[in-house]
Amino acid sequence: MRTVIRCDDPEVDPYRWLTSLVLPRPIAWISSVGADGVANLAPHSFFSVACAHPPIVSFTSVGDKDTLANVRATGEFVVNLATLAMLELVNNTSARFAPDVDEAAALGICVEPSTLVTPMRVTDSPASLECRLHSTQTLGDSTLVLGEVLAFSVREEMLVDGRPDASRLRPLSRLGGNLWGLPPDPVAVRRPVQPDEIV
Amino acid sequence: MRTVIRCDDPEVDPYRWLTSLVLPRPIAWISSVGADGVANLAPHSFFSVACAHPPIVSFTSVGDKDTLANVRATGEFVVNLATLAMLELVNNTSARFAPDVDEAAALGICVEPSTLVTPMRVTDSPASLECRLHSTQTLGDSTLVLGEVLAFSVREEMLVDGRPDASRLRPLSRLGGNLWGLPPDPVAVRRPVQPDEIV
Repeated sequence: MRTVIRCDDPEVDPYRWLTSLVLPRPIAWISSVGADGVANLAPHSFFSVACAHPPIVSFTSVGDKDTLANVRATGEFVVNLATLAMLELVNNTSARFAPDVDEAAALGICVEPSTLVTPMRVTDSPASLECRLHSTQTLGDSTLVLGEVLAFSVREEMLVDGRPDASRLRPLSRLGGNLWGLPPDPVAVRRPVQPDEIV
Repeated sequence: MRTVIRCDDPEVDPYRWLTSLVLPRPIAWISSVGADGVANLAPHSFFSVACAHPPIVSFTSVGDKDTLANVRATGEFVVNLATLAMLELVNNTSARFAPDVDEAAALGICVEPSTLVTPMRVTDSPASLECRLHSTQTLGDSTLVLGEVLAFSVREEMLVDGRPDASRLRPLSRLGGNLWGLPPDPVAVRRPVQPDEIV
């Protein structure tokens, strides 16, 4: 038996169903800088790839948050991968700090200069995506932000044969409510190219 | 030390870096129907939430795939959650079946009618999101598809206190290359609302 939740029912809050059914969600721990030079660091879990070539990532800001204001003002952001070792720090940056507070400085999180963009990257993060704003699109209470990736910066110890290795990256994810997902165990499955390769 | 991969380097294929660094990615196992009535079922891992209210999900089609053609033609699709028990079937639906082949029928995957839209849902999937096309946006070699969720349909045994439970859903994810992520163990972490709640 199935329970059907119709979104045209005014009693239904679709947000809780989205967050508990679209999962596990990767974490974009986004660093940005405002027009006033104040840095921001906050986690976003509505994060994905929007285009392969050119490389464009997407994130959605529900409501007007500092990250969105900064990206609109300066046109740049950095996505830092969030790993198991950083879970508490990532979670703490989700608190409602005032706009004039630099979360990294307030919480003692080390940052260092990026290669091509102004926002700093998180030093201990195993990989960062340096992005330039492509576009924003307002959708209801949310804003979908697209950013072109100008460069990937990866700690060398995360690479195996020149490629990032999931077992070394140990990525966190978000599930519903206040649940986080621990790094998933990877399993290799050969992808059939043609139907007749299916065994 | 970090390796920096600049995307303006013509030797760099950003796709492999995106897929091995934006992770774990949730799976949208998408069922759709073409204008000719032929059904399609295929997995997409560039999948996220684009808006909270109204509920809008996004997926990206790299290149022109059957799912994209069907969604454009008929304006509807269903996102089925992909769970550990379905890993092999989900992977097999990623083979290049001809457009006139119904993957579910070819592979013996049971489907049943949805509540509000024409595409069928996967019977054994624990939850389905019934979507109506909101918009498509062409970006380079990819198309970003937004769909408004009209209804969530969830198997009742997946609910605990009326909410979907991640430990019961057992969601798969995609990592880089041919790696899949097994369902992540959930861990509850209290979210600090105000900075002075951080311990």
